[in-house]
Amino acid sequence: MAVRVLIKHGGMPNETNTPSAQKSSVTVLGLGAMGQALAGAFLAAGHPTTVWNRSAGKGEELVARGATRAASAAEAVRASDLVVVCVVDYDASGVILEPLAADLAGRTLVNLTSDTPERAREAAAWAAKEGIAYLDGAVMVPTTVVGTPDALLFHSGPRDAYDRHEEALKALGGHTTYVGEDHGLAALYDLSLLDYFWTSMSGLVHAFALAAADGVPAAAVAPYLKANAGLVQSFVDQTAGEIDAGRYPGEQGNLAMEVAGIDHIVHASEHRGLDTSVLRAARAVARRGVALGHGGDSWTSTVEAVRKP
Amino acid sequence: MAVRVLIKHGGMPNETNTPSAQKSSVTVLGLGAMGQALAGAFLAAGHPTTVWNRSAGKGEELVARGATRAASAAEAVRASDLVVVCVVDYDASGVILEPLAADLAGRTLVNLTSDTPERAREAAAWAAKEGIAYLDGAVMVPTTVVGTPDALLFHSGPRDAYDRHEEALKALGGHTTYVGEDHGLAALYDLSLLDYFWTSMSGLVHAFALAAADGVPAAAVAPYLKANAGLVQSFVDQTAGEIDAGRYPGEQGNLAMEVAGIDHIVHASEHRGLDTSVLRAARAVARRGVALGHGGDSWTSTVEAVRKP
Repeated sequence: MAVRVLIKHGGMPNETNTPSAQKSSVTVLGLGAMGQALAGAFLAAGHPTTVWNRSAGKGEELVARGATRAASAAEAVRASDLVVVCVVDYDASGVILEPLAADLAGRTLVNLTSDTPERAREAAAWAAKEGIAYLDGAVMVPTTVVGTPDALLFHSGPRDAYDRHEEALKALGGHTTYVGEDHGLAALYDLSLLDYFWTSMSGLVHAFALAAADGVPAAAVAPYLKANAGLVQSFVDQTAGEIDAGRYPGEQGNLAMEVAGIDHIVHASEHRGLDTSVLRAARAVARRGVALGHGGDSWTSTVEAVRKP
Repeated sequence: MAVRVLIKHGGMPNETNTPSAQKSSVTVLGLGAMGQALAGAFLAAGHPTTVWNRSAGKGEELVARGATRAASAAEAVRASDLVVVCVVDYDASGVILEPLAADLAGRTLVNLTSDTPERAREAAAWAAKEGIAYLDGAVMVPTTVVGTPDALLFHSGPRDAYDRHEEALKALGGHTTYVGEDHGLAALYDLSLLDYFWTSMSGLVHAFALAAADGVPAAAVAPYLKANAGLVQSFVDQTAGEIDAGRYPGEQGNLAMEVAGIDHIVHASEHRGLDTSVLRAARAVARRGVALGHGGDSWTSTVEAVRKP
């Protein structure tokens, strides 16, 4: 599973409540670090929680906090109308879930395992065939943030299944969000956010490497890079508007000039013996944007080159 | 010149003051959009300002506001102790400055033309030979922000030359900053910030393209990407600390897992026919980080791979 670090940790600890008869039962399959955090959040919110893990020796702390350990995966599934699974990948979740199809039929299964929209849609097709109400989700925060008001989770799949279990799912995070009927959407939002995040972090590390090559400490440029990250943030809505409109006005700066600016960064980086592969790839996309006729348009017009590899 | 968009425009208009006898005289060579903005800022701050441009017909508005138009570049230089030049690149500034060496001798020359640290150092070596006090600078904001409290400019070169003219240079922006004796430093800070900025903007556009490929409007993911940009900002100091220490603890997430996460983004993007060259380059750097032994370290450890292309 990719590291989940997309919302700042608010640091609010879980509060352990006594399970209440009013709260619905929940089953959690898979007790890796994230599975344990999910089960812990359900317990903290007062949901009777049944847990199971393929290998033994996990979840002692959860049982001490009131969770019921099932003797088998089938027994765990039969304990609740809502079954949540979170394991390393869809190959692993498939191995666990396929033998459970008969027990899962008529229940709601929420798969919080990270993978691609395509894998989510395949799993949804399987669930539909087996008569299982299926939601696919993505946990966008680290385990320590799960269950807090700051935690962001995306869910996609049938709206009625989400609505039926929304109260329980909200126990996992204050920003539990339904993004649409298409089962692939939660994973798509997940990947879109990580796409930006890792590309941006690549740029951040490279910027520090460039400064350090001439003896400038990272701490010296950090205040300016923070301002710069705030600037990118301030451009998000404008960029989104241009993408949705398919128009990229270049009054504030145009692609042809920006390519020339990137040339300086590439030259200076190469001169210092630094890897420039990410920058050169970004420049090549921008150059193709210019070749497609967007030399006078904004940086956002590079989306046209991204769409024509 | 690269577009300069690194600090948010505060929108504060210049106020035109009457030139005052107390303020030092300033000369601006080059009246492109940025040169005009620089001269306008000096005028607004009350500095007697002499302007010159290689081709005629530029700067009418500046003259109307009180600037003196010199008949020649040499006459312009002789009008002030502080001479500022801002043209398209160092080839262009060289063509203008070299014939003026004798006139510039004993004065302070500030070159705000954008280029690499290497070009700045070459120009400094020439200036030293000619007896010219030389500062190299970088304007980090668009022309509309020059002269406002929000405007960021970097300067590097001899401290005494900067101190002598700091009051005048502060007219160009509230965040006029001296970064060191090495003439290349202003350009280095400039390129480091742009390095982060354009890489990050590449990731932003790609993230929107990925969402749009499945029919998700950019406006729907924009709020989450804004949170995400804020998250990158919150990691700047931690990343800087790790780079300066040369230690990259992986407790919050490690490179091997992060590479696996990027695999999902690459696969999903390729499946949708999108260009993945930037992401693949970032992944290749990260994989080399893992191969260098940093699989259990943080993302910041990719700096070691950046340094070993």
